[in-house]
Amino acid sequence: MTFNTEEAPGVHTDVPSETEGFVFNHTMVRIVDPEASLAFYSKVFGMRLLRKVDMPEGEFTLYFLACTGNDDVPEDKDARAKYVNGREGVLELTHNWGTEKDPQASYHNGNDEPQGYGHICFTVPDLQAACEWMDANDVAFKKRPEDGRMSHIAFVLDPDGYWIELVGRK
Amino acid sequence: MTFNTEEAPGVHTDVPSETEGFVFNHTMVRIVDPEASLAFYSKVFGMRLLRKVDMPEGEFTLYFLACTGNDDVPEDKDARAKYVNGREGVLELTHNWGTEKDPQASYHNGNDEPQGYGHICFTVPDLQAACEWMDANDVAFKKRPEDGRMSHIAFVLDPDGYWIELVGRK
Repeated sequence: MTFNTEEAPGVHTDVPSETEGFVFNHTMVRIVDPEASLAFYSKVFGMRLLRKVDMPEGEFTLYFLACTGNDDVPEDKDARAKYVNGREGVLELTHNWGTEKDPQASYHNGNDEPQGYGHICFTVPDLQAACEWMDANDVAFKKRPEDGRMSHIAFVLDPDGYWIELVGRK
Repeated sequence: MTFNTEEAPGVHTDVPSETEGFVFNHTMVRIVDPEASLAFYSKVFGMRLLRKVDMPEGEFTLYFLACTGNDDVPEDKDARAKYVNGREGVLELTHNWGTEKDPQASYHNGNDEPQGYGHICFTVPDLQAACEWMDANDVAFKKRPEDGRMSHIAFVLDPDGYWIELVGRK
C-alpha cells in the first residue's frame, strides 16, 4: 500500500506504527437545548442518538449521534458503546443542565470573533434535493448554493447557530 | 433493521428517507501555521494529508486529513477527492495565508470564554501507550489519565491550543 498523500511542508510520508488503530472518533460542541438539537440532527440530518451519558456530578449530559447508514447497530448498550467508540463520524453534543431554561444562554459559533472552529460538513447525494429538505424543515441558510462563487456548497445553521456545510456528492 | 437509539425528548425514531446517503464528512478548524499542524496531525495522529486546495482569490488553503487505516486510497487526484468527500472522519484545516508569519496570530479554542466548540476525539487502542507516544513527541497535556476522576480519557493540545481527547478502546 502506498501512502497516497499530497506533499506539503511538515507532512510525514509514513504512518508511524505507534498510531496504528487511531480513529478520529468524534467532534464535540456544546448545545443550549437538547430537545431542539436532537430533533434537528435526528430529523434533518438523519443521525441516530446512539449513546446518552448523564453526568450528575458535573450536571451535564453527553449525546452521541451518527449517520449509521446500513450498519447493524448493536441493541445491547455496552456493545453499542463499543460500536460508537470504534467508529468515525460521531457528533457529541454536550448539554450543561439548565441552559435550556435560560433565555440568555448561547454558545459561540467560532466564525464570529474570536474565530477558531469553523463548521462540520455533511456530504449529501444531491445538493439541490438536500436544500429543498432543509427548506421543508425551516432550516436557516447561511449560504445557499446560488450565493457567492461556490455553487457546489451550501451552509445552514443548527439550533445554536453553528455552521453546517453541505456538499453534493455529484 | 431496527432503529437502535436512545430515547430522549426531540429524537426522531425513524431515519427520514430524505436523509439517505448523508455522511458526516468533516470538521473544520482554522490553523495559524500549516507546517506545524501538518507535522502534528500526520506524525502524532498518523493522519494522511489527502487533499490540499489552494484558494488564491481568498488567500487561503484547505488541508483535508484522515486516518485511513487499511483503506486503498486512490492515487488519482479526482478519485482521491471523491474518496475524501464520501468518507467520515475527515479533518479540514483552514490556513489563511500569512498568519504563520504573524507573531500575534492565534485562534480561539472554544473552551475558554466565549465557549462553544469543545474538542475532537481520537479512539486509541491503548491509552497508556498513546500517552507515552504523546510524551515522546513533546505534546502538551491538558489532562493526563491520572488527573481528575476520569482515568479512561486524556486531553492533549494541538499546535493552536485546540483540545484533543484520547479515549482508550480497552
